[in-house]
Amino acid sequence: MTAGLRLAELLELLKIQDAGAALHAQIAHLFPICRSITGNGVRETLAILRERVPLEIHEVPSGTPVLDWVVPREWNVKDAYVKNSRGERVIDFKRHNLHLMGYSTPVAAKMSRAELEPRLHSLPDHPDWIPFRSSFYRDNWGFCLSHRERQQLDDGEYEVRIDSTLEDGSLTYGELFVPGQSEDEILLSAHVCHPSLCNDNLSGISVQTLLAQYLSALVKAGRPPRYSYRFVFAPVTVGAITWLAQNEHNVGRIRHGLVLTLLGDSGPINYKRSRRGDTAIDRAAAHVLGRSGQPHRIQDFSPYGYDERQYCSPGFDLPVGSLMRTPYMQFPEYHTSGDNLDFVKPEHLADSLAKLLAILDVLERDATYLNLSPKGEPQLGRRGLYRALAERTDDGNAEMAMLWVLNQSDGKHSLLEIAERAGMRFESIANAAEMLAKAELLARV
Amino acid sequence: MTAGLRLAELLELLKIQDAGAALHAQIAHLFPICRSITGNGVRETLAILRERVPLEIHEVPSGTPVLDWVVPREWNVKDAYVKNSRGERVIDFKRHNLHLMGYSTPVAAKMSRAELEPRLHSLPDHPDWIPFRSSFYRDNWGFCLSHRERQQLDDGEYEVRIDSTLEDGSLTYGELFVPGQSEDEILLSAHVCHPSLCNDNLSGISVQTLLAQYLSALVKAGRPPRYSYRFVFAPVTVGAITWLAQNEHNVGRIRHGLVLTLLGDSGPINYKRSRRGDTAIDRAAAHVLGRSGQPHRIQDFSPYGYDERQYCSPGFDLPVGSLMRTPYMQFPEYHTSGDNLDFVKPEHLADSLAKLLAILDVLERDATYLNLSPKGEPQLGRRGLYRALAERTDDGNAEMAMLWVLNQSDGKHSLLEIAERAGMRFESIANAAEMLAKAELLARV
Amino acid sequence: MTAGLRLAELLELLKIQDAGAALHAQIAHLFPICRSITGNGVRETLAILRERVPLEIHEVPSGTPVLDWVVPREWNVKDAYVKNSRGERVIDFKRHNLHLMGYSTPVAAKMSRAELEPRLHSLPDHPDWIPFRSSFYRDNWGFCLSHRERQQLDDGEYEVRIDSTLEDGSLTYGELFVPGQSEDEILLSAHVCHPSLCNDNLSGISVQTLLAQYLSALVKAGRPPRYSYRFVFAPVTVGAITWLAQNEHNVGRIRHGLVLTLLGDSGPINYKRSRRGDTAIDRAAAHVLGRSGQPHRIQDFSPYGYDERQYCSPGFDLPVGSLMRTPYMQFPEYHTSGDNLDFVKPEHLADSLAKLLAILDVLERDATYLNLSPKGEPQLGRRGLYRALAERTDDGNAEMAMLWVLNQSDGKHSLLEIAERAGMRFESIANAAEMLAKAELLARV
Repeated sequence: MTAGLRLAELLELLKIQDAGAALHAQIAHLFPICRSITGNGVRETLAILRERVPLEIHEVPSGTPVLDWVVPREWNVKDAYVKNSRGERVIDFKRHNLHLMGYSTPVAAKMSRAELEPRLHSLPDHPDWIPFRSSFYRDNWGFCLSHRERQQLDDGEYEVRIDSTLEDGSLTYGELFVPGQSEDEILLSAHVCHPSLCNDNLSGISVQTLLAQYLSALVKAGRPPRYSYRFVFAPVTVGAITWLAQNEHNVGRIRHGLVLTLLGDSGPINYKRSRRGDTAIDRAAAHVLGRSGQPHRIQDFSPYGYDERQYCSPGFDLPVGSLMRTPYMQFPEYHTSGDNLDFVKPEHLADSLAKLLAILDVLERDATYLNLSPKGEPQLGRRGLYRALAERTDDGNAEMAMLWVLNQSDGKHSLLEIAERAGMRFESIANAAEMLAKAELLARV
Repeated sequence: MTAGLRLAELLELLKIQDAGAALHAQIAHLFPICRSITGNGVRETLAILRERVPLEIHEVPSGTPVLDWVVPREWNVKDAYVKNSRGERVIDFKRHNLHLMGYSTPVAAKMSRAELEPRLHSLPDHPDWIPFRSSFYRDNWGFCLSHRERQQLDDGEYEVRIDSTLEDGSLTYGELFVPGQSEDEILLSAHVCHPSLCNDNLSGISVQTLLAQYLSALVKAGRPPRYSYRFVFAPVTVGAITWLAQNEHNVGRIRHGLVLTLLGDSGPINYKRSRRGDTAIDRAAAHVLGRSGQPHRIQDFSPYGYDERQYCSPGFDLPVGSLMRTPYMQFPEYHTSGDNLDFVKPEHLADSLAKLLAILDVLERDATYLNLSPKGEPQLGRRGLYRALAERTDDGNAEMAMLWVLNQSDGKHSLLEIAERAGMRFESIANAAEMLAKAELLARV
Repeated sequence: MTAGLRLAELLELLKIQDAGAALHAQIAHLFPICRSITGNGVRETLAILRERVPLEIHEVPSGTPVLDWVVPREWNVKDAYVKNSRGERVIDFKRHNLHLMGYSTPVAAKMSRAELEPRLHSLPDHPDWIPFRSSFYRDNWGFCLSHRERQQLDDGEYEVRIDSTLEDGSLTYGELFVPGQSEDEILLSAHVCHPSLCNDNLSGISVQTLLAQYLSALVKAGRPPRYSYRFVFAPVTVGAITWLAQNEHNVGRIRHGLVLTLLGDSGPINYKRSRRGDTAIDRAAAHVLGRSGQPHRIQDFSPYGYDERQYCSPGFDLPVGSLMRTPYMQFPEYHTSGDNLDFVKPEHLADSLAKLLAILDVLERDATYLNLSPKGEPQLGRRGLYRALAERTDDGNAEMAMLWVLNQSDGKHSLLEIAERAGMRFESIANAAEMLAKAELLARV
């Protein structure tokens, strides 16, 4: 078995400096589409992603029981607007898809300003932003608009028109399996149901797609990663639940996982632990962020958030954490039109991708070894491991890393655990282990 | 099984605002009695308590072996004084029972001031207070007085008279069993051997009695608590040892316990952990005090103090903590006449009772559940648990509490553990569990 | 079994105030000898120690395989110098043995200043000190000198002469076994391979020798310690490896161990934990240093340092820590001629010895007991343990210590663990246990 994925290699392949621009361009391409938990917006999004990676598209009919839920009716919109008495479209879905409340039922009516008022949603504290609202499981309709526009509405009569359908159809999700050397899987999951919002979650979608693209390229190049990777692009909650329902008996192969979301804003990177809290992904993420020398946050699991709620439900309890920058609800642009193409920046997207790769690199390279010369220190000199003495790494020297690996490799400590005990970077420890394994001083357990 | 005791209900029943005054009145009623580890003072005290709760009174004969000890001779006093040469009672047991050293042997003698001097005890640092002294296991006699009075004694001859008896009799203790829904017991224990001292321990006696009174009322009203409650009113050390000796084979039913003492002073509430340190009572008390928003202290177990010394001896190792306000020896009035009716206040007594009830409420309501829909989140909406979303509690909302309960209810985490992990109040978590159980999403383990 | 070693006794025997002077005198006696990992310097050193304690001297032939290593050729030096063009010895081994790089091969050559230059080692930052350099496993030669002397070398021709031998011979180490009451052993180990350096490691050698001397005296006096003591005086790394190779099947008797080094400088005492980190020696050292009221440091294990590297290699994983003052490389005099007779002081040597004795005292006296009267407190009064009440120790009173021992002696907690939980000095707890054992309230497990 080769050493698997190497961050350094991937960064070279990816030209990480350019990755930020590529990710932002992908986001811009997907931005105008009106997505919801079902409907053509998700299909169109997945079709665009399919130009890059061979996603399997799954359509699950409305009414299908999925765990405790049922796949809902499919929602599509042709047009939606509110016209004033002069026939002007004062609220227009075609101008911004946030203007229409998600899952709004069809409407064709005339009404006074007073009758319209309870159907309108705006943000007095952020008067220029349109809020994002949906009503998935209760028939309802409404319009969202900036508070400034709302205040300009006169008291005349309004024509309200929502040309939507809410009918039996299907829920759509995409999935990609990239086979590695082992059948053990790493799950990556991004929700694909939010309309014109960039950070939430075109950022997660685009980072996940670029990762899938490059891992696929490695496989094609005959250099598969150690783990197999499974990428899920599904609507939040009911989409993840549908995927879990259809894969209930295969999730046992998932060794590690991450929900990817909110990866483009300027906040420090944030890792939210899995329910179990001390799995390898939790420790790998804490190690990488903790040693990055950059601001970061490690957040305990809570049963609120995105699809980690489903993956970490007690019946599955998968080792799935979540990688994001500023968490949901903690930035004012969250779920508003302020979460736009200016709010996400190439450099933050690139940084998120680099951190993600570094975490995966730890998982790919982590292993447990047995020191084959465990009594006393082996004589490194006669094995040509002297040169290593001079090769100082940035957090100690290679000799120190070798001594730690030899001392701790009793078959009970993984390289990541050794790195944590030594207070050294995982990479230094993993490099030392590789040198020692080549010198036949270590055997993989 | 119903949800058991509810703090809110009890507080209503108890009219907690009035409870303080009632507790203080009870203390005032018991204050003048001269108690010791045996004798009529304890009998009289228990007889007064029996007007409120149907205590069983136990008399254990002097000489009875009890664990490593033997029940001592019974001590009673008719009168005791020191008269000066003018025949004036300069020290008079009838004026304050602290004037006589506990367990003083009978004396009738004349002596000089110099001969009297080594028999006198006073507190130079607190010249107005009479100290409390006893000599239980070595024949001795003495008088206690304020330092100011001592300094006024002239050098004439004194008549010393102690009309006490120290004879075979019995040790007296009281016990009350309030049957709950389960045979599992909660033990409450207060020592009843101190003479005219209010905080130590008329405060513990009166709080314990009022609790017993109301729990008995609940049982009579057909609403028994979940646990059975056992109340012990016994002399310190040898009394608790006697009770343990007579109940050696039944203590296995005790699931939780508290020694109640020093509950009326103005210091912050203090919980002293059981020997094991992490039992349910330890965690319940820490949760309640920690979330009270008020000053408090959690103290580790030590083998010094009151009868937790006996309950927590290694041969029993019962899960018994101790609830008090300012700990023994940490307030200057401790074991002096300064521990009087002014030193204990209705509001502090009421606060102690409220904290005690809140701790018991956690024990009563704590339970471990199994999520019956553990794969993915159950759909709360179609079960009418939507309304809950709006019902914000003071530390989060009901939805969040429900998500935590569902996520953690894998049969391994109690509600108290869930509350601690969620960083929410136990009550919010317990209420959420109740709603979910009603919706048949949870089953009790 | 008697109570074993007692610090108080030993301090009296040792007249600790005088011990510092004796230790320093021993260091001064050994200072001039040129030691290396083999050769006559080690032999001469061990011969001097043998005047005090009956060391067994072991000679292991060059070429003997020892674990992963091979015993190297033996190195000896008759003379070594560099003469300038005027025939003056500008660098002279006979003036200071640090001038010659350890294990320098024989040389007789004339060369220019430029040719000589790469063979010279000096310390620009400490221009008056001669550095200490060796080249054990690669043939090489060189001279060390103060930077000031180096700068005074002129550009003329030099005569270089190293009259050394590097031939098959043997590696020498010394060992002493002091039999105690039990076959369980405490290992003490000091490296003996450094030339004229005082702290590293004449300080460790002399402290270890004085300890051996007094323990031997105790045995002769018919008062053997509880443990047997094994003292190893061996060259660093390959010496310890040789000892381990020859004792591979006996190390199982080692219950505790310490590497002794760097015990004479003015820095605070420092304990470096064993690989396991929580063995009895780790806890005993932490307790003694933590309660000393003096500055100290507890350092986690790392696989760098002295022979703890070998004892704590995973194939042995012995409970061996290391006692030192300022750690290796953390004082500027380290491995230079600045580590001289002025750098180590009698008072620091005496303090190191006292701390060592205190740690051993804990190990000697630590034990686990069973309370024979575990139900309730035993009545101390009728057993004459009342007097103890008045005997206040410096961190509480004897009664408190007795209560802790009784409460915790359920066969699961050692006296050291009880001392830690009680927050009391080990000595108080051990004294209390002794009184209780005499009163037949405790039995040793």
